[in-house]
Amino acid sequence: MSKPYKGFEPNWFQGKIPLNSYRSVFKWGAPEQIKAPKEKMLHDVMNRFGIDDSIFREYQQDLGLDEVKFDIPVQLAPEHIAALKAIVGDAFVRTDDYARFSVAYGKTMYDILRARNKIVENVPDAVVYPDTREQVEAIVAYVSEHKIPLYVYGGGSSVTRGVECVKGGVSLDMRLRFNKVVSFHETDQMITVEAGISGPKLEELLNDAVSAFGAKRAYTLGHFPQSFEHSSVGGWVVTHGSGQNSTYYGCIQDMVLGQSYATPKGVINTDSHPKKATGPDLDQIMMGAEGAFGVLTHVTLKICRHMPETVKRFSYMFKDWETGIAAAREIMQSEAGNPSVFRLSDPEETSVMINMYGVMDTPLKHLFKARGMEIDKMCLFLGFTNGEKGFSKNAARNVARVSKRYGGLNMTGYVCKGWEHGRFSDPYLRDTLQDFGVLMDTMECSVNWSEMARVHAEVRKVVKARPNTVCMTHMSHVYPQGGNLYWIFIILENDAEAFRRFHASILDAIQKSGASMSHHHGIGKMFGPWLEAQLGKNEFDILRALKNHFDPDNIMNPGGTLGLDIPETEKRDLLK
Amino acid sequence: MSKPYKGFEPNWFQGKIPLNSYRSVFKWGAPEQIKAPKEKMLHDVMNRFGIDDSIFREYQQDLGLDEVKFDIPVQLAPEHIAALKAIVGDAFVRTDDYARFSVAYGKTMYDILRARNKIVENVPDAVVYPDTREQVEAIVAYVSEHKIPLYVYGGGSSVTRGVECVKGGVSLDMRLRFNKVVSFHETDQMITVEAGISGPKLEELLNDAVSAFGAKRAYTLGHFPQSFEHSSVGGWVVTHGSGQNSTYYGCIQDMVLGQSYATPKGVINTDSHPKKATGPDLDQIMMGAEGAFGVLTHVTLKICRHMPETVKRFSYMFKDWETGIAAAREIMQSEAGNPSVFRLSDPEETSVMINMYGVMDTPLKHLFKARGMEIDKMCLFLGFTNGEKGFSKNAARNVARVSKRYGGLNMTGYVCKGWEHGRFSDPYLRDTLQDFGVLMDTMECSVNWSEMARVHAEVRKVVKARPNTVCMTHMSHVYPQGGNLYWIFIILENDAEAFRRFHASILDAIQKSGASMSHHHGIGKMFGPWLEAQLGKNEFDILRALKNHFDPDNIMNPGGTLGLDIPETEKRDLLK
Repeated sequence: MSKPYKGFEPNWFQGKIPLNSYRSVFKWGAPEQIKAPKEKMLHDVMNRFGIDDSIFREYQQDLGLDEVKFDIPVQLAPEHIAALKAIVGDAFVRTDDYARFSVAYGKTMYDILRARNKIVENVPDAVVYPDTREQVEAIVAYVSEHKIPLYVYGGGSSVTRGVECVKGGVSLDMRLRFNKVVSFHETDQMITVEAGISGPKLEELLNDAVSAFGAKRAYTLGHFPQSFEHSSVGGWVVTHGSGQNSTYYGCIQDMVLGQSYATPKGVINTDSHPKKATGPDLDQIMMGAEGAFGVLTHVTLKICRHMPETVKRFSYMFKDWETGIAAAREIMQSEAGNPSVFRLSDPEETSVMINMYGVMDTPLKHLFKARGMEIDKMCLFLGFTNGEKGFSKNAARNVARVSKRYGGLNMTGYVCKGWEHGRFSDPYLRDTLQDFGVLMDTMECSVNWSEMARVHAEVRKVVKARPNTVCMTHMSHVYPQGGNLYWIFIILENDAEAFRRFHASILDAIQKSGASMSHHHGIGKMFGPWLEAQLGKNEFDILRALKNHFDPDNIMNPGGTLGLDIPETEKRDLLK
Repeated sequence: MSKPYKGFEPNWFQGKIPLNSYRSVFKWGAPEQIKAPKEKMLHDVMNRFGIDDSIFREYQQDLGLDEVKFDIPVQLAPEHIAALKAIVGDAFVRTDDYARFSVAYGKTMYDILRARNKIVENVPDAVVYPDTREQVEAIVAYVSEHKIPLYVYGGGSSVTRGVECVKGGVSLDMRLRFNKVVSFHETDQMITVEAGISGPKLEELLNDAVSAFGAKRAYTLGHFPQSFEHSSVGGWVVTHGSGQNSTYYGCIQDMVLGQSYATPKGVINTDSHPKKATGPDLDQIMMGAEGAFGVLTHVTLKICRHMPETVKRFSYMFKDWETGIAAAREIMQSEAGNPSVFRLSDPEETSVMINMYGVMDTPLKHLFKARGMEIDKMCLFLGFTNGEKGFSKNAARNVARVSKRYGGLNMTGYVCKGWEHGRFSDPYLRDTLQDFGVLMDTMECSVNWSEMARVHAEVRKVVKARPNTVCMTHMSHVYPQGGNLYWIFIILENDAEAFRRFHASILDAIQKSGASMSHHHGIGKMFGPWLEAQLGKNEFDILRALKNHFDPDNIMNPGGTLGLDIPETEKRDLLK
């Protein structure tokens, strides 16, 4: 995978990952796929950290190749396990260590660091693999009757401890069987699926709709989060996810037309008419509850025509962050049709990206100088458009027109292609680098244009206050009113608790800045302690009232989800 | 206003309307504006009803010119009235008959028929005219403490008995003072207003933003319901309203960025960041509650650039309804940019419109024949596009391309201009015609493409089962998944109860057809008895839980709003 190194090459772990190992659980994405950094990137990292190659001479972290084994007894009574087996079939209830651990953690570095260090906690007693909506409904009815905590594992890419089984009990692993298409409606351009279907599987079926469903043409959902490869429709819906193409296709909130949930209060079905004035929007009341109200079973989604041939790629370099923001705002407010992918990098991210995509090896580097652009100030803007041919062209023409007006240097579609190439594979670098103690994670928030520069500066200041920290920021998922600020930070850290404290300090900074604490990662259990302060007490009480309505015994994703069931004393501990 | 008649002209009431009269309350729109039908239209009505001009020889209804007077004692204790005066000022609490009656009814024909016949019921004890958000909050706190029912009157165009003070108490008339701009944010393209601001006032300020706010350019909200002239921002938000340009600008749900409410549980504020993943969407939980959770005070709305110069008008004639629907669906699914106004009329509405706009007096009538179009089957499609010049042009080009493909006859922008001319003034015909017993009202629902033709046929069948009924239908407010079906019916009816039963039979038909019972009129108290059956019991229980949370004493718009507080027995009566 990695290019041959000219100088010293670290011993990137590229071996076979044992089937039942910790690494098989915590590694990013497809089991067989591994990505190591190119030499240029490694040198860039060393430069930024001001370190030599010594940490890369030997592994700083356990590779996690041991078999998963732990000593947490199953506390669920045998009759409950028998009852669950009666619902889904004997083979589809597991209580072995591997099955239990494999659904316990998500993909924040706090999870990975615990997994590498064999810190096993918050595993379920049993893992159940449902096949049908009726089975899920029967399971929810059963656990409600017996007050057994219930968790759901969709794609496993949560970065908020969303899936963690803090109170033990049962976890539904949706990946194995609850991943089918229920119905496809070409006339109404919508599809109904089981919540466990993975992003890639759904997208492949839609692209292939002619043969898969006998459709007249190919379709797309247009939802491509960076975690695409191991994310599920259910995960997107319950956390309010957004894909990298959301500026054109919308966030998941804009795509959901109907839902079914199994809750302790019974089954909830919403209808899939396009827009209603029949009281508060039930779809929106249910969505974003992160499993705290019940289990999402079926989802009806809006689909779009698949027209890859109309894509128009663009990339521009602006002289600085303020100019880039001003141009981005003008593009989003000019009503010429929204681009699909829309990403403006701050100077630090820009400098990493132009190294990564080899821009400084091209004649462009002379152009930067000629145009008076300073390497440590300039900002890369890239993306592409979608939609019908004329629409896509008009949107791209507007991007070009506005970028030119703001002094943007046209870098053609080249850099965008580099980004596209790595858009789903770059996260694989996390594991390879982390073996040597280089840790990479992300945070994000939603901001209005008028506060963009300030929030960026304030949060960045907190991140950079930690010595030797790479902090790359970009703006993406944009609107006429503002957009998402997304931080990727790289630090040298091997301790889970130390990471958690650093991570919390960033979240604190986001909250203090006045931004909304998440645009699309969600809250989970990790950000739960901050939510009430974010929304306000009266506002948070609305979520409490809904929780009490649906789940009075607190068995649906209990233990801190959305901060709904954290005692005040514990909250103060967590915020430390 | 009306053109000189060739033959007999009825004595259309065009006199001065006494200030404190019933008519001044029930008449549509601006006090001084009156519209009478042209001769052609009158003859068309007579033809359709199969009647001669005898009913037009004398008024069939009371003109409602008497002073409003009734004998319903004020039951609110003097100390409460004193307390309210202490909050808003002595002059801003009224208990006279006229003030009380003027906020009791909306604009469904059930309201108008009662008003014409001096049937006064459900008036508040006192009308309060708040000036500030703090006053509204103090009033809500006061009525909560003393369990006094509270109603809100915004623009008065409710067609669902939304404002009716079924339990007496206090009504807040927002028109007088609670109608100011709170703040204007050009960088973020949003505006914060008091909920009582009227549509025209807000739109005028936005169009005039350069002088009103010192802005760099002009703006628009893009929200133009037919009731525009006497509707308020608050009314739009609490009922999930949509404007005629919603296919481009979105429904009010898409425009609201932030809200403040005064509820018995305290003040609720949502933040105005563009998109959040911080639990279920609080804006959507509050919106559409029609005053049953609390009083909307401030609203922050997304605004757009005002670019009237980019508008492209279009009109086409399709050979029949099915072809028109197919073309409309293709336009909405082709991703070429949505038109703004988008209206496809069924054959009956088409025949009325081409008479109304004089199309049959033009050479076009020969073209219809030449193109093999039958007058009683053909369907008129009209609208226009908005947005940046290239975007608007591309959207119009797509409309033209698709219309041509489906055999549409290009009628240029001429017919669209006719529609635009009457878009806000046509409802004024209601009063003039009704003086002679010709009653006009509307119903609407949300449907998917696959059920459009069937729902249209089934509901139309029920409407047409009543002898001598004009039933005009159009599809508007469209999406890739479907749209709104909108019925305008004209009947000869002078009795309020008879009207109510007929109206209910249409709603029943809509519900039985499987459509969603409202796209943008809302539910109010008139449709409340149907809502639980529409949503389902478990689903309706969610709204009940929210109601109980916000308003445990049931003082916020009580007496049937959203069907939340109708005893089962009474419900059966209402459905009769």
